[in-house]
Amino acid sequence: MQMGLVVGRVTATRKDEKLIGSKLLITQPIGTNDTLKYLPIIAVDTVGAGVGEKVLYVTGSMASRAAADKDAPIDAAIVGIIDSLDWERSGG
Amino acid sequence: MQMGLVVGRVTATRKDEKLIGSKLLITQPIGTNDTLKYLPIIAVDTVGAGVGEKVLYVTGSMASRAAADKDAPIDAAIVGIIDSLDWERSGG
Amino acid sequence: MQMGLVVGRVTATRKDEKLIGSKLLITQPIGTNDTLKYLPIIAVDTVGAGVGEKVLYVTGSMASRAAADKDAPIDAAIVGIIDSLDWERSGG
Amino acid sequence: MQMGLVVGRVTATRKDEKLIGSKLLITQPIGTNDTLKYLPIIAVDTVGAGVGEKVLYVTGSMASRAAADKDAPIDAAIVGIIDSLDWERSGG
Amino acid sequence: MQMGLVVGRVTATRKDEKLIGSKLLITQPIGTNDTLKYLPIIAVDTVGAGVGEKVLYVTGSMASRAAADKDAPIDAAIVGIIDSLDWERSGG
Repeated sequence: MQMGLVVGRVTATRKDEKLIGSKLLITQPIGTNDTLKYLPIIAVDTVGAGVGEKVLYVTGSMASRAAADKDAPIDAAIVGIIDSLDWERSGG
Repeated sequence: MQMGLVVGRVTATRKDEKLIGSKLLITQPIGTNDTLKYLPIIAVDTVGAGVGEKVLYVTGSMASRAAADKDAPIDAAIVGIIDSLDWERSGG
Repeated sequence: MQMGLVVGRVTATRKDEKLIGSKLLITQPIGTNDTLKYLPIIAVDTVGAGVGEKVLYVTGSMASRAAADKDAPIDAAIVGIIDSLDWERSGG
Repeated sequence: MQMGLVVGRVTATRKDEKLIGSKLLITQPIGTNDTLKYLPIIAVDTVGAGVGEKVLYVTGSMASRAAADKDAPIDAAIVGIIDSLDWERSGG
Repeated sequence: MQMGLVVGRVTATRKDEKLIGSKLLITQPIGTNDTLKYLPIIAVDTVGAGVGEKVLYVTGSMASRAAADKDAPIDAAIVGIIDSLDWERSGG
């Protein structure tokens, strides 16, 4: 999984019918010290996440397991909301 | 999923027979502020997207779920057309 | 899928038995304006591609769908030969 | 698989129910000479790893095979603890 | 598949039981002119490769197809030993 910060929301009226009803959140990967990194991805929320929350997200085919519709074409899903990160060693 | 901008179209007469009839669109990943990033990919359109539209696309094995032929060798598919992006926090 | 340029061929006598008979082509990812990018990959040819041709290739588990032996350990396959790229907007 | 250094732990009370009970470790990819690289990932521990240990981790759908619940939405799992790395040639 | 140079070996006594007996090789991705690139990965050897050899390796779920135990949590496997690379065009 990766750590991300939810920074916004996507509206897409025309979409795959299996995505109807999914909450699509713009999620920015984060690294050490909460730095924002790389490109934001669009993840399906499965845990009630909101903008400004730090989350855990899964990518690839495993993401679809977390979705309400297991057959949906989903490659990124938010599967947890981070309460705290305990860095006992400094990361890179 | 990722956000992309459709920038063109590919013509390929000789191709895997399961790709016959697929509309193959050159899609450029986009980041914060609609900046174009990384390499363009070739995605199968499944929602009637056109050049100049901002889209959501899926990569990897989940992409084939959106295709008409679920057994096609497809690793990228456009699954939504973006109406709007609501950035409530600035991304990286 | 991604766009690539076939730049060479690999010979490997000792290999997984399910790869015997596969044509293994060195394929360089290409971006806007046919620039060569990142690391070349080794893709199994499934459409009769040759050196110097621009091709479409699939990566990951979907690549094996294009192979003659659907159970082969293949993560990259050439699935089309590009006739033309119509860039209607400039990519990144 | 990749080599990583476990640098911390994640607490996430609200999460996918299939992740309940999983130990989620912040794991930093490492390269030659133990340099820390790229973004830390969050991996499910399956071998009793702890902070400060060098580990082997698997990403993608194969990671879920190592988990207690084979149906969990997991895309990264620690599958070994590295005793030693024998570099007989210098890496890049 | 990708091209790599085997640069060393990993010893991991505590590991997933499905990895017991696997030879784990530190493999450095290589690019044009045999330059060493990116992070080394740990690949399961399935063809009798040794340090100093140039190899073909598969990543992702397809790697497990090459392993002795098809259910092992493996995301990288060496599937061929490269005899020669015929570069007919220069890569990037």
